[in-house]
Amino acid sequence: MGVIVQKFGGTSVGDAKKIQSVASRVIEEKEKGNNVVVVVSAMGKSTDHLVDLAKGIASQPSKREMDMLLTTGEQITISLLAMALTERGYPAISLTGWQAGIKTEPVHGNARIIGINTERVEKELGEGIIVVVAGFQGITEDGAISTLGRGGSDTTAVALAAALNAEKCEIFTDVTGVFTTDPRYVKDARKLLAVSYDEMLELAHLGAGVLHPRAVEFAKNYQIQLVVRSSTEKEAGTIIEEEAAMEQNLVVRGVAFEDNITRVTVIGMPNSLTGLSVIFTELAKNHINVDIIIQSTLSEQLTNLSFSIKNEDLAETICVLENSKEKLKYERIESEAGLAKVSIVGSGMVSNPGVAAEMFEVLAENNIAVKMVSTSEIKVSTVIEHDEMIRAVQILHDVFQLSGSPVRS
Amino acid sequence: MGVIVQKFGGTSVGDAKKIQSVASRVIEEKEKGNNVVVVVSAMGKSTDHLVDLAKGIASQPSKREMDMLLTTGEQITISLLAMALTERGYPAISLTGWQAGIKTEPVHGNARIIGINTERVEKELGEGIIVVVAGFQGITEDGAISTLGRGGSDTTAVALAAALNAEKCEIFTDVTGVFTTDPRYVKDARKLLAVSYDEMLELAHLGAGVLHPRAVEFAKNYQIQLVVRSSTEKEAGTIIEEEAAMEQNLVVRGVAFEDNITRVTVIGMPNSLTGLSVIFTELAKNHINVDIIIQSTLSEQLTNLSFSIKNEDLAETICVLENSKEKLKYERIESEAGLAKVSIVGSGMVSNPGVAAEMFEVLAENNIAVKMVSTSEIKVSTVIEHDEMIRAVQILHDVFQLSGSPVRS
Repeated sequence: MGVIVQKFGGTSVGDAKKIQSVASRVIEEKEKGNNVVVVVSAMGKSTDHLVDLAKGIASQPSKREMDMLLTTGEQITISLLAMALTERGYPAISLTGWQAGIKTEPVHGNARIIGINTERVEKELGEGIIVVVAGFQGITEDGAISTLGRGGSDTTAVALAAALNAEKCEIFTDVTGVFTTDPRYVKDARKLLAVSYDEMLELAHLGAGVLHPRAVEFAKNYQIQLVVRSSTEKEAGTIIEEEAAMEQNLVVRGVAFEDNITRVTVIGMPNSLTGLSVIFTELAKNHINVDIIIQSTLSEQLTNLSFSIKNEDLAETICVLENSKEKLKYERIESEAGLAKVSIVGSGMVSNPGVAAEMFEVLAENNIAVKMVSTSEIKVSTVIEHDEMIRAVQILHDVFQLSGSPVRS
Repeated sequence: MGVIVQKFGGTSVGDAKKIQSVASRVIEEKEKGNNVVVVVSAMGKSTDHLVDLAKGIASQPSKREMDMLLTTGEQITISLLAMALTERGYPAISLTGWQAGIKTEPVHGNARIIGINTERVEKELGEGIIVVVAGFQGITEDGAISTLGRGGSDTTAVALAAALNAEKCEIFTDVTGVFTTDPRYVKDARKLLAVSYDEMLELAHLGAGVLHPRAVEFAKNYQIQLVVRSSTEKEAGTIIEEEAAMEQNLVVRGVAFEDNITRVTVIGMPNSLTGLSVIFTELAKNHINVDIIIQSTLSEQLTNLSFSIKNEDLAETICVLENSKEKLKYERIESEAGLAKVSIVGSGMVSNPGVAAEMFEVLAENNIAVKMVSTSEIKVSTVIEHDEMIRAVQILHDVFQLSGSPVRS
């Protein structure tokens, strides 16, 4: 019998009724003759409630104690789901992260899984029991409860699927799949039937928000077929798998976008081997996330360096740069806030060199100024005015023929 | 440095403010130069909330899953208290039952502790860290989370005190100590400065409700000095220790009482070796708790048997007896509901044979009819009309000179 891993997020298990309908989805899969492992998150807003409790107690709660606190959320969900399944005649057992053998680095708040001892889970599956595992959590080598950070339950599900050699890992969520672009903004956005891991990674990083990048990376490394689908609708979702398994008739698979972008430019910095590393080391130390980086040499002696950050990090970024002025010897800093990033993503781009040019051309025709460009083998990102963002997305969505019936990749 | 174990119940940790004041009590003890282990229960009504969640999911939730669910309550409290202590400059670490090495029988809902591996707790104490342990929970040999049942956090505290060779175990609660009788009903009830383990056991069983009998037994077996005291008031509490350590100038130490009692009498049962065992085995199978049992032989052939139960168990008790009628061949059953039990407790009674007689005499003088009597070496219990209960308690409290200033045992 094959193993199927199903993951349900917090909104899917928000109350007793929703837990019952999750139980129905699990039973459906069990009835097909599969061994089922279910990974669940904390119920709805319960994590927020726990965070508030901690805030009421301490201004700087230790990360270890936060993990101790927050992991109770998933522990509650697993027990309730196991009760619901058993009550309906399908024997089930709940396992916390440590009981399910999920080992992590000795880190709190954002640990990575370093291994899974599947003995216990396999024993239960062997007896025909549905195994319900707490997402988002694991155990360190010295027996402390750790959490995996954001998107942690996705990672738990994929890692378990890999360790158990599962046929597939289904991620149930509040959307019906991965779309060509955000359907809230572009009405003819269409659901993709399949995307590759790499495309999904670009889409996830670019704000599609359906699947955590870490989970996609894990799935890619272990070649686990992922399915993103709705926890309430019956329709098929989006399959995420290796490129080779998919037809390749679409050059661009999706248009992703993200606002709240600021461009910072360091002007007239003397060329040196260490300049770049000084700047980005200092920014990283201050937890400022830098996205696009562009360097252009002005002359043999001088360089201009541009990079993009979140609007809210601007003040701190300037402060960091000012503090390094003596070392960097740049002329001045310029910045422009209120920008947005619009990207086209598709693995077909590798063999279609004209795609980036087509993107720039159509933006220019529509009087949309491009402020920054960054490209990878399967993605072209442009930074433009925030006010032009949705128009640009709509135009690109049309030009690359993403509007229409469900996209067969 | 000595080890002190402090236990705080659910009402003492009901909200952020109360957790802060628990932190203050712990810090006070730490400041005296002691190593401190704190055992806490779930916050206020949080266990009830979890039980309601389970009821919303399943009519017969498995006990294993109930344990998985309920143990999150203490896990939340330990993390919050550890945060509060650390924030105030006193390094603290929270440990769940399994992390603290608390091993139980392979039973859910009502497990007994079978051993404690104190390695981890001692390591932390050795580094000057305050250890905050989740009460009420442990781990079975095969790695399942178990709970100790009612009064479980008291037991956790006492068992840890025993395993750690602690100087004493302080049970903080919402009363200032153990009283000669219930001060809500008898206004001149006085706090006892000390009672023996056995007296406390009788008082606990008789409904004093301050300490769980299992915890007292544990303390007695391991000779752990217990202190029952208020979590809000500063005054000294009641010490519970071995008889030999105490002065013996009081014959009766307290008057306990309990209403909601029904007497059942099985009349005209032929004498047989198995009759008693048949009745009480059947009642136990049906989870009916029998308290006092009195047997009187009517003739060489016939026996009358009386026993007391809770009012609400009457219908089921009669049903059980009817079903065994063929086997028991009794003549008829009589019952009387609406009774109460009033008991005097004191280890001095062993050497004072007249105490029971004095009790009966004073009850008779006051026209209180005694329906059943049961005695042990340190206790005399009488069953009387419910309406006479408080009057009887007041009279006995006066006669045995319990009214007055704090009682020095």
